[in-house]
Amino acid sequence: MDKSKTPRETILQIVKEKHLMVKEIMSENNIDSWIVFLRESDANPDPVQAFVIGGEIVWTSAFIFFNRDNIFQKIALVGTYDVDAEKAKGIWDEVIGYDEGISTKLKEVVAEFNPNKIALNYSVDSVMSDGLSHGLFLKLKKILNNYQDRFISAAPIIQPLRSRKTETELKLILEAAQVTEVINSEITELFKNGMTEIEIQNIYHSKVEELGLETSWQRVSCPAVDAGPDKQMGHVGPTELIIQKGHTLHNDFGVKRDGYCSDIQRMWFFGKPDQLPDELRHAFDTVRDAITKAFETVKPGITGFQVDKVARDHVISQGYKEFMHATGHQVGTKTHDGGALLGPHWERYGGLPDIRLEKNNVFTLELHVITENYGGVSLEEMIVITDTGVKFLVPRQTDFIFVEL
Amino acid sequence: MDKSKTPRETILQIVKEKHLMVKEIMSENNIDSWIVFLRESDANPDPVQAFVIGGEIVWTSAFIFFNRDNIFQKIALVGTYDVDAEKAKGIWDEVIGYDEGISTKLKEVVAEFNPNKIALNYSVDSVMSDGLSHGLFLKLKKILNNYQDRFISAAPIIQPLRSRKTETELKLILEAAQVTEVINSEITELFKNGMTEIEIQNIYHSKVEELGLETSWQRVSCPAVDAGPDKQMGHVGPTELIIQKGHTLHNDFGVKRDGYCSDIQRMWFFGKPDQLPDELRHAFDTVRDAITKAFETVKPGITGFQVDKVARDHVISQGYKEFMHATGHQVGTKTHDGGALLGPHWERYGGLPDIRLEKNNVFTLELHVITENYGGVSLEEMIVITDTGVKFLVPRQTDFIFVEL
Repeated sequence: MDKSKTPRETILQIVKEKHLMVKEIMSENNIDSWIVFLRESDANPDPVQAFVIGGEIVWTSAFIFFNRDNIFQKIALVGTYDVDAEKAKGIWDEVIGYDEGISTKLKEVVAEFNPNKIALNYSVDSVMSDGLSHGLFLKLKKILNNYQDRFISAAPIIQPLRSRKTETELKLILEAAQVTEVINSEITELFKNGMTEIEIQNIYHSKVEELGLETSWQRVSCPAVDAGPDKQMGHVGPTELIIQKGHTLHNDFGVKRDGYCSDIQRMWFFGKPDQLPDELRHAFDTVRDAITKAFETVKPGITGFQVDKVARDHVISQGYKEFMHATGHQVGTKTHDGGALLGPHWERYGGLPDIRLEKNNVFTLELHVITENYGGVSLEEMIVITDTGVKFLVPRQTDFIFVEL
Repeated sequence: MDKSKTPRETILQIVKEKHLMVKEIMSENNIDSWIVFLRESDANPDPVQAFVIGGEIVWTSAFIFFNRDNIFQKIALVGTYDVDAEKAKGIWDEVIGYDEGISTKLKEVVAEFNPNKIALNYSVDSVMSDGLSHGLFLKLKKILNNYQDRFISAAPIIQPLRSRKTETELKLILEAAQVTEVINSEITELFKNGMTEIEIQNIYHSKVEELGLETSWQRVSCPAVDAGPDKQMGHVGPTELIIQKGHTLHNDFGVKRDGYCSDIQRMWFFGKPDQLPDELRHAFDTVRDAITKAFETVKPGITGFQVDKVARDHVISQGYKEFMHATGHQVGTKTHDGGALLGPHWERYGGLPDIRLEKNNVFTLELHVITENYGGVSLEEMIVITDTGVKFLVPRQTDFIFVEL
């Protein structure tokens, strides 16, 4: 984010759209103050800062939202050297500078409004609502020691703020997904017998660079490239394994373009459709149909648990071992954008599968099965929730892409 | 870091050099266990992860160092899908995978060693030692509820671990500094009457991209470009102000190359040396001499407070207002690399100015004064501390760079 070439106007446009949402969400949740407390955000970023300040901050800073009785007030309390930059954004009602330390002015500002609750960015379950480091929390607790019993988690603000994609965000995510599929189809033309996973990843990286983009997640495993029956899928990087006739190829790929990500998995089979082993046919159909069933379940108001269950049950009903991950996650400025999750009730997912899905949420639908003789079959689609239902962002994959080497 | 093109071997080499240091530093500080607790590090990175794992992690993970009675044991406890990737690094004595949740195995591992202290990544003062988010801290506190009273800050481990640069790191930082100066001198040849700050920044960005590098900090203010008497220096981006005869130009620029940063400030004067106003001559000499005095004070064992004071006193003795920032910060994978700081005893610096400087620390020396009629004069050099003293990484600036437009 920090080094991105996203136009400044786009970044500011999104911040303005999100600031409008903050008031609405604070009112919905009956929270009258929210303090985003940051320092050296290049080293210790808060995942919400892209929506609150749209940039970096060096000194310890507090970005404060007050909301009560039709008063909605937005205050930036920053080091002297950051005052002009924050003022220039035109998003704050007041920008206050400090020199030696933030505590005096922060106490004054809070005392003046005297909020009933102070929402802070911590959450046991939700990484995206957990941007406040423990040391900074201790510092804030000391500064606002008279208000400690009013501290609450800002997750009820941050989760909808991230997940309700704005018009600008939806456009950018769609474009990232479209570019991903263009690159996938260009590379489909380039497969040659004897190519290694590493060579294929290098071609992807060249395309990404030609377009001046970044990979959606770390380059070493974006795209993941998995050739043939012996490759364990997962977060392992590409190897010297080669693609060959009668084998599959799987990838998991996305780009980051103007700050927004895509995340799509595709499968190729090297051979003609009539050469496809029954075992792979059955595996592919199972994965595809599980995604269809999940897709048909998604609508505003439902929980991610319900969606996951439909897909998971289908895979098990077809005789496969259950996949040990969630059926879908949100996508946004991060590949894994947090918040509501299409997942089972496992310890590591905490309460995320029970959050209700909303209009303008963008999710993946993804799952895999493992065949006995031909390796894994895995697909991942991107969907956006609409007023009444859901649609695929880009055309989904309904069969292997058949390539004759 | 995550999207960087740094060769995998370089990243792993540095992790191996740092892992060797961990044992030494834990013994020095009499700390018998250190747990680096992470999740979704792309969204919520810990500044120390570059030295502990050299990559990203998706699921909640614990990287554990035990050190007692000549037993030094390194354990990675990660989600199933990350097991192979961690094993492949060859840096762990044991890699343990989990599926549904981390708590059972984490409790087992800790119970078996039964450490006296558990160092965790939080610190009120040091952002680089404060990578553990508050929500993750609460989660860990719940999992290890029988051990809460053994929790201590890992700052005594992390600070020296970051600050004692290894051989590989010193080479990379030197190369980043050298490239910075090459770009500065190339651009010195390109200045033309009527150029704006924004145009100059664009040329810098083109050079950085041609070389396949990143800017050291966010592009919008890297380089900072400040032309003439009316520009407020700081973190404000470049404007439409133009360079012209009789004016100065100031920049603050660095590159990130193979994961390591540089940070250098330079000053130009558009005219001949004999056209330089006395006011600018006196300001430049004051800044240069303050840096010289600081440089001559630096050696292993001294505190940053002592170094800062020498420079600060000189500026005040020459009739200028005191600069409201520290005289120097460390540089490494981050432009502001944290730990020991060459700064005054101000609230916002906490205890950092009292940490003793060590061999192989890399610092900036930087400060500015404001003239009445010609704007600010500001320089920044990079130094490395040696066995007995200190040296400049690249030749320092001793006078304005004079350019005739």
